[in-house]
Amino acid sequence: MTETALANLQNLYRIFTVPEAPDSTLGVVDQAISENVADFLHKHIVAIERSLEDIENDFVASKIPEDPSFVSDYAEFVKQKLVAQSVHTAAPGFVGHMTSALPYFMLPLSRIMTALNQNLVKVETSKAFTPMERQVLAMMHHLIYRQTDDFYEEWIHDSQTALGAFCSGGTIANTTALWTARNQLCAPDGDFAGIAQEGLYRSLQHLNCHGLAILVSRRAHYSLGKAVDLLGIGRNNLVLVDTDYDSRIDMQSLQAEYLKLREQNIRPLAVVGVAGTTETGHVDPLDELADFAAEVGCHFHVDAAWGGPTLFSESHCHLLKGIERADSVTIDAHKQLYVPMGAGMVLFKNPHALSAIEHHANYILRHGSKDLGSHTLEGSRPGMAMLVHAGLSIIGRKGYGLLIDLGIERARQFADLINQHRNFELITAPELNILTYRYNPAWLQKKMAQLDQEKLQEINDLLDLITQEIQKRQREAGKTFVSRTRLLSALYPTGQISVFRSVLANPLTTKEILAAVLEEQCAIVKDTEVQRLMDKIKQITA
Amino acid sequence: MTETALANLQNLYRIFTVPEAPDSTLGVVDQAISENVADFLHKHIVAIERSLEDIENDFVASKIPEDPSFVSDYAEFVKQKLVAQSVHTAAPGFVGHMTSALPYFMLPLSRIMTALNQNLVKVETSKAFTPMERQVLAMMHHLIYRQTDDFYEEWIHDSQTALGAFCSGGTIANTTALWTARNQLCAPDGDFAGIAQEGLYRSLQHLNCHGLAILVSRRAHYSLGKAVDLLGIGRNNLVLVDTDYDSRIDMQSLQAEYLKLREQNIRPLAVVGVAGTTETGHVDPLDELADFAAEVGCHFHVDAAWGGPTLFSESHCHLLKGIERADSVTIDAHKQLYVPMGAGMVLFKNPHALSAIEHHANYILRHGSKDLGSHTLEGSRPGMAMLVHAGLSIIGRKGYGLLIDLGIERARQFADLINQHRNFELITAPELNILTYRYNPAWLQKKMAQLDQEKLQEINDLLDLITQEIQKRQREAGKTFVSRTRLLSALYPTGQISVFRSVLANPLTTKEILAAVLEEQCAIVKDTEVQRLMDKIKQITA
Repeated sequence: MTETALANLQNLYRIFTVPEAPDSTLGVVDQAISENVADFLHKHIVAIERSLEDIENDFVASKIPEDPSFVSDYAEFVKQKLVAQSVHTAAPGFVGHMTSALPYFMLPLSRIMTALNQNLVKVETSKAFTPMERQVLAMMHHLIYRQTDDFYEEWIHDSQTALGAFCSGGTIANTTALWTARNQLCAPDGDFAGIAQEGLYRSLQHLNCHGLAILVSRRAHYSLGKAVDLLGIGRNNLVLVDTDYDSRIDMQSLQAEYLKLREQNIRPLAVVGVAGTTETGHVDPLDELADFAAEVGCHFHVDAAWGGPTLFSESHCHLLKGIERADSVTIDAHKQLYVPMGAGMVLFKNPHALSAIEHHANYILRHGSKDLGSHTLEGSRPGMAMLVHAGLSIIGRKGYGLLIDLGIERARQFADLINQHRNFELITAPELNILTYRYNPAWLQKKMAQLDQEKLQEINDLLDLITQEIQKRQREAGKTFVSRTRLLSALYPTGQISVFRSVLANPLTTKEILAAVLEEQCAIVKDTEVQRLMDKIKQITA
Repeated sequence: MTETALANLQNLYRIFTVPEAPDSTLGVVDQAISENVADFLHKHIVAIERSLEDIENDFVASKIPEDPSFVSDYAEFVKQKLVAQSVHTAAPGFVGHMTSALPYFMLPLSRIMTALNQNLVKVETSKAFTPMERQVLAMMHHLIYRQTDDFYEEWIHDSQTALGAFCSGGTIANTTALWTARNQLCAPDGDFAGIAQEGLYRSLQHLNCHGLAILVSRRAHYSLGKAVDLLGIGRNNLVLVDTDYDSRIDMQSLQAEYLKLREQNIRPLAVVGVAGTTETGHVDPLDELADFAAEVGCHFHVDAAWGGPTLFSESHCHLLKGIERADSVTIDAHKQLYVPMGAGMVLFKNPHALSAIEHHANYILRHGSKDLGSHTLEGSRPGMAMLVHAGLSIIGRKGYGLLIDLGIERARQFADLINQHRNFELITAPELNILTYRYNPAWLQKKMAQLDQEKLQEINDLLDLITQEIQKRQREAGKTFVSRTRLLSALYPTGQISVFRSVLANPLTTKEILAAVLEEQCAIVKDTEVQRLMDKIKQITA
C-alpha cells in the first residue's frame, strides 16, 4: 500500500470512529442548532434572495471529487452555500407553504432516529420500531374510524394484516390507496388470477368493461394524476368533476359524469373526496360522497393529507363528517402533525384491504412474519413513525386540537384584515386554515362591478400580472412570503385569476405578522413595474 | 378560555419556542449521541432479545392520549422501550443486514437537514437544495455514464429535464425506471395520446399486442414484482429467467423466454440486469444484456441498488462493465454510500427520458420552472441529497473506492475462514461483498457426496432446520448477527437450501469479529435442539 493510500485509509477509519470535536466547524453548528434552532436559522439563512442561476454556480462540478476533503471545509461550504441559501420554512412570516416551525423535541428525537438507523421493512432491522409503527397506525385509524377496543386488540399487531401503511408522503399514500382499490376491484375470481398476476388488460376483459375511472373534484391534488398514470388507468379516466365556487365537488356534476362513464362501459373504480384542498383548504361533502360510493359500489378514498388533523379539534371535526365512512384515508404527518419532512400515512377501514397488494420474498417478508414491508409500496424505510408517536404522546389529542383551532382562528383574523383593508380583495374565505386573496383596491373593485366582460377580462389579466409581480418581489426580499395559484372565483366567473395563497399553520404566526405581510405587499405596489400595470388599469377604467 | 386550556396553550407555545434544556432527559441523550454515538448505541441497546410479543405489550394503546405529557417522560419511554429494544444495525458484528456504521459527520449534517426542513418538490421550498440535488444527480450520472463536460454543462441545471430522480429508496427508483420505460414505449403517436393519458388497455390496442413483459433473472429484488403489479403489467409478465449457479442470468434462457413472448404477441418492455443481487451479491453479465436489449429494441435497466458504488473502485469496477450502456440505473445511497435510511436514486442516460412521466400543476411545478417535483414519483421530499453530497465531497471517489475494496477483501477473508473451518460450508463465494454459507461439518460434506438423492434431500431438510435454529438463536443472543435465505446451489442442485447470508459493508468489521461470528455459531450447535437434529442426521448417514 502506498503512503497516500495508507493515509486515506486512516482518514477513512477516523470518520467512522472519531466523533466531530465540539469546537470543530460542524460541532459548533451542531451545538448552535441544539441550543436554539430558531436563532440559528434566523442568523444563518440570508433573507435577500440570490437568483437561482447565481446559486447554481456553486453547484456546477459534475464529477465526484477524486480526493477526500476535510469535514470542516465541507461544513463551511454547507453554512455558506446551502444553509445561507435555503428557504426559511419555519419563519412565522412565511405563510405560503405547508411547513411550520417544529416542536423543539422533534430535533433531538430525529437525531435518535438517525443514530439508530432502523429499517422498517422488516422486524429483523427494526424490532420495537415495528410494533411502535403499528401502534401509530392504530391510533390514526382510531382517530378516523373510532372502532371498538376489541377491534384494535384483534388487529393492531396481527401478522397477516395492517391497518394502514406508513410512507414518505401523501403521493405514495394516495397511490397505495388507489392501487389497493384497483386490486380489490380486479380480485382473483375463478380462472382469473387477479390484476396483480394478470395485469390490467386481462382484468378489463374479465370485468367486461372498457376502462376504470376515478372520480374526483377539479381541485384534487396533482398526485392523483400521477397515480392513475402509474396504475395504467390513464389520465383520461381521472374524471375531474366540477366544483362549486368554494372548491367543493358538485354532486349533480358527479352524478352526470358517472352516467357518462356507464354509457362508455367504464367502471368507476373509486371516488375521492378532498378534505382540505391544497389550494384553498376546502372540504368536499364527505357524507354525500360516501352515499354516492355506496350507491355506485365503488371504493371511497379521502385525501386528507392536509385536513385530516382537523379531527383533533372538537370545534371543527364536524367539517370532516363522513370521513369515517371512507374505505381509505391519506394523512400527512409532515404537514399538520408538525413532524419533519418525509412522513405520510394511508389508513384502511378494513384490516384486510391491504392484502390486495401483499407481497413476500424469501429472505424477508416471509409469510406469517410481522414485517410491515409486506404491505407497503416502499421497501426500506426509516423510523419516521417514531416522530409521529412522539407528537401524539407529547402534544396529545387536546394539544393538536388547540393547534388546529389556533390555525383556523388565525386564518379568520387574516380574512378580516384583508376584508377591512382598502387595497385587498379576499377571494376564498378560510374553511380550514387556508385562504386566498389578491391586491385589488376597493375603488377598482367597485368599478369592476360595472364593467362589461371584455374590459373585466383585460383588468383581471393585468391584476394577474400584478399578483405575480408582488409575490415574486416579496419572495425575493425574504422578509415574508405568500404563495400563489390560479383559480376560478364566484366573483369573476368568466376565467381563472391569479391569487395569493396563505396557509396559517405555524402557531408562531401572529396577527401583527399578518398585518406586516399586507403592509409589505402595499409597499411593493409602489414600485415602478406595478405602477405601470396600475396605470394601464386606470386607463381602461377611466 | 378555561384555566386548563390556557395552561395547555402555554405548554404548546413552550414546545415551539423553548429549546430542550441540556440537562433534561432528552438533552442528555442528545448530548451523549453527539459525543459518541457508537458508545451510546452500545450502552443503550439491550443485546438479549425480548420476544416481539413481549415488546408489543409496550405498544398496545390504540387511542391517542387525550392530554399532553412531559417531554422528559416521553424521552424516558424512548430510551427504555424503543432505543433499548431496537436493532444495533451499526454494530460491526452484525453482518447480516445491508446497514453499517455511518460516518460521524452524517449525524450533525442530518440535524442541519431536519432543522432546515426543506421540501425538494419545488424551488420555492428548497432554493439552493434544488441545484445541490441536481448536482448530486449529475455526479452519479457521470459515475455511470462518463459523458463529456459539455454534456453536463448543458443538462445539469436544465429546467426542462432531469438526469435522474432522487427518492426514498430502491423500490421507488426501480418503479420510476419501469414507469418511464413503459411510458416511452407507449408514447403519443398520431391519434394515440400516449399511455399517461389513455391508459394501458388502449396502449396495447395501439401497439397491437397482448401484453408488455419485463425480463429479469430469478434473483431479482422483490420490488420489481411490486412495480409490475403497480404499473398494470401483471406479475405473470415479469418473466423470471433462470440463472447459472452464481445467480447470473442465463443468456440462452433469456433468449428462449423472449421467443416465447413473441409467440404470444407480448412486447418486451424492458430487460433488467442486477448488479449485486440482494441475496448473494452477484452481477449479471451487463454487456450481454445490453446487446440483447439493443437487438430486441427494449429498455435496459440495471438495478444496482447494492452494487452500484462498486464503480468507485479501480480494482473492481470492471465487474459492472456494460452498466454504461443501460438506459436507467438504480443506486441506493442508504446502502453503500453510507447515508442514513431513506435515500435512493435512479439515473437516466438520456436527459429527456423522464419527460415521459412529466407532470405539472397550477400552484407548483409550473412549466419552465426548475422544480424537481415535475419529474419524480414522490411529491414532498426531504433534503436527503445533502447527505449524499456530503459523502461524495468528504469521502471522495477514492475514499468510496477504498470502502468498496475493503468490503470485498473482508468478504474474501471470511470465505477463507469458512473454507478452512471444519464445521462450515461456503455456499456462494463473494463476487462483491456478500457471501452465503451454512453449518455443515466436513465429515458430513464427505458423506453427502456419496448419498443418493433421497437421503441427500432428507439431510438437507435437517440442515435447513439447523440453519434456521442457529440463526434465530444467534439473533436472540444479540452479540453477532447473520441473516438467512434460501437458494439453489451448484453443490446441491436438486432443491433450494437454507443458508446464512453475510454482508461485509461495515468498515469496522474485522477478521477477528468474523471469526467470533463462526465461534458463536459453533457454540449454538452444542445446544440440545441442534444436537437432536444432528443426531437424526447421524442416524441417516450411519
